[in-house]
Amino acid sequence: MTTQRLPSWRPGPAREAILSFLDGIDAVPVDDRVAYLDNDGTMWCERPAYVQYGFFLDFLRRAAVNDPALALRPEFAAVLDNDTAQISEIGLPRIAGALAALFDDRTPAEFAAAVDDFAERYRDPARDVPLASLVYQPMLELIAELRAHEFTVGIVTGGGTEFVRRVSLRLYGVPPELVVGTMIGYSFTRDERDRPVLQRTVHQMGAANEGPAKVANIQSQTGRPPILAAGNSGGDREMLEWAQASEHGGLAILIDHDDADREYAYESTAATFQDAEPITAVAERLGWVTVSMADDWEQIFAVASTPRA
Amino acid sequence: MTTQRLPSWRPGPAREAILSFLDGIDAVPVDDRVAYLDNDGTMWCERPAYVQYGFFLDFLRRAAVNDPALALRPEFAAVLDNDTAQISEIGLPRIAGALAALFDDRTPAEFAAAVDDFAERYRDPARDVPLASLVYQPMLELIAELRAHEFTVGIVTGGGTEFVRRVSLRLYGVPPELVVGTMIGYSFTRDERDRPVLQRTVHQMGAANEGPAKVANIQSQTGRPPILAAGNSGGDREMLEWAQASEHGGLAILIDHDDADREYAYESTAATFQDAEPITAVAERLGWVTVSMADDWEQIFAVASTPRA
Repeated sequence: MTTQRLPSWRPGPAREAILSFLDGIDAVPVDDRVAYLDNDGTMWCERPAYVQYGFFLDFLRRAAVNDPALALRPEFAAVLDNDTAQISEIGLPRIAGALAALFDDRTPAEFAAAVDDFAERYRDPARDVPLASLVYQPMLELIAELRAHEFTVGIVTGGGTEFVRRVSLRLYGVPPELVVGTMIGYSFTRDERDRPVLQRTVHQMGAANEGPAKVANIQSQTGRPPILAAGNSGGDREMLEWAQASEHGGLAILIDHDDADREYAYESTAATFQDAEPITAVAERLGWVTVSMADDWEQIFAVASTPRA
Repeated sequence: MTTQRLPSWRPGPAREAILSFLDGIDAVPVDDRVAYLDNDGTMWCERPAYVQYGFFLDFLRRAAVNDPALALRPEFAAVLDNDTAQISEIGLPRIAGALAALFDDRTPAEFAAAVDDFAERYRDPARDVPLASLVYQPMLELIAELRAHEFTVGIVTGGGTEFVRRVSLRLYGVPPELVVGTMIGYSFTRDERDRPVLQRTVHQMGAANEGPAKVANIQSQTGRPPILAAGNSGGDREMLEWAQASEHGGLAILIDHDDADREYAYESTAATFQDAEPITAVAERLGWVTVSMADDWEQIFAVASTPRA
C-alpha cells in the first residue's frame, strides 16, 4: 500500500504492537482472522452519557407529552429529572428494563425506524456534533487496516443489540449479524389477517452482555472466537483475555481514556461489573496493548460526512 | 451471464417463479436481500436419519467402548439398540439432551474437531456416499443464483447450531454467523493457569429452533429478516410465512419429498411441531412455491468432490 497505515496513530508502542501483530497475520487462516471491538468508549464516545440512553430519553420525553402519566412512574421520573441519586437508588438494570419496555410490541422495522430517526437528529450534548462525530477516527483506521488483512470485524456492546446494529452498518460497515449485544426478546404473533408479526418484549430479554457473557454470546451468536479484541472497561476483561488466549496468539487492546483536554479522563469500569483491580492495571499485568488517547492518537474524533439531504 | 441459470431445475412453474422473483430484485436494496434456507430435508437429505443423529450415534458407540456403563443409561440403550419404541417412549427431546450432554465441558474447538473428524469419515447408511453427496445439487445452484443477485444467504436448522456451522462453510460457503439453529449453552471458566476457557453445557441449552422460534431466533441472532425462505416441514411454516409477508413481497419455497425412486417420498412434518393440515396443503393455500423433487429437479444429489488426501 502506498498510503500510510493508521495515519491518526502516533508512532509509539501501541501502534507498533498492532502493526507488528498484523505483519505476522499470514500464519493465521483467513477464516480465523476475527476481531471484536467494543462499542461504547472503544469505538465511540460514551460521555457525558451513553448514546442509547440519549435515544431512550429522547423517546421518553416525546412519549410523556402525549401520555403525562408516564412521567409519574418512578423509573421515568428519575430519568426525566436527571435525578442521579434516584437513578442510583432504583438501579440501572431496572431503569434500563423500563426504558426498553417503552418499545414493547414494536416490530423490528418500527424500532429500526425509531433509531434511524434519532440518529439523524442527534447532537452530542457536550460538543454539539452529529452522531458520526462521536466515532474515534483511529478506530475507523484500525477497522480499515484489519479488513485490508482480510479480517472479519464484529462489534460487541453491553447495550442493546438491535440499537447498535442499526448504527453499525452506517458508521463502521459492520453487518447486523456481526453485532453481539444485550438481546431483547421477541414474541411471534399474527395480525387480523393472520399474517405473522414479530414484536419486541422485555419479558424474554437476555442478561446484560458484559463480562463473561460477552465471551459466551460471541461464541453462541456468531461462532467466531476473536484473535484480536479491543475494549475499554471491566466489562470487556474476559473478552480481552479470551482473544489473547487464542491458539494463534491473540492481541488484546485496551483504550485508556486519559485525555481530559480533547475527550474525557476517567477510570473505565462497567456499571455491571465491579473489579477491585483497575482495568489498566489488569492490562499491564497481562501484557495487553494499552492505548493512551492522549499520547497515541493524533486525532481523536472522526469528521462527520455531510448529513444526508 | 452466458451459463444457464439453475441448470438442474427442469422448466416448470417452480423454476419459473424463482427466476421471475430474482428478475424483479433490482427494486430491493442490497442490504435487504436476505435468504434463509432450512438444512435437514431442504439443503440435504434427512433420511434414513438426521446426519447429526449419526454424529451423536457414532460418538456414543465409541465412547461406550471405553465406558460400558454409558450403554446402561435408558436413553443411550434405546439409541444403541435402535429401539424405536423405546426412543419414542422416552421422547426425542430427552434423547437429544442426553446425546448433546456427551459433549458437556468440551470447548468449541474440541467440538469442532469432533465434527470435522466425523464429516471426513461419514458414509450415508443407505447410499454409501460421503457427506457432500447428501446435498441437493439444485439447492447449491439456488445459492449461487441468489449470490449472483447479491443476496446474503443464511442457513436455519432445528438441529444444533455449532454442528451445522461446522459443515455450512465447507458445503455451502455460509459463514458461522449466518447459521441459526438450536443453541447449546456455554459456561465461562478458567484453567489452572487462570486463562479463560469456554465450555459447552446442556444446562443453558436453548429451546428447539422450530416453528415460531425460527423466526424469533433469525431476528435475534442475525437481525436479518429474509425476503426468501425455503423449507420442507411444519417446523418451517412460520419462517416461510414471515418471508412471504416481507414488505418487499417475499418468496416462500417448499421442498416436497415426492420422489421414492431417486430420494424418499414422505409427508414432511417436524417432530416438534404437529399441524393438522399437511404442509403441502398450507403451501397451496398460501401461494408458496412448491418444488416437486420428482418433477422439478433433473438431478437431485450433488456430486461430491474428491475427498481430501
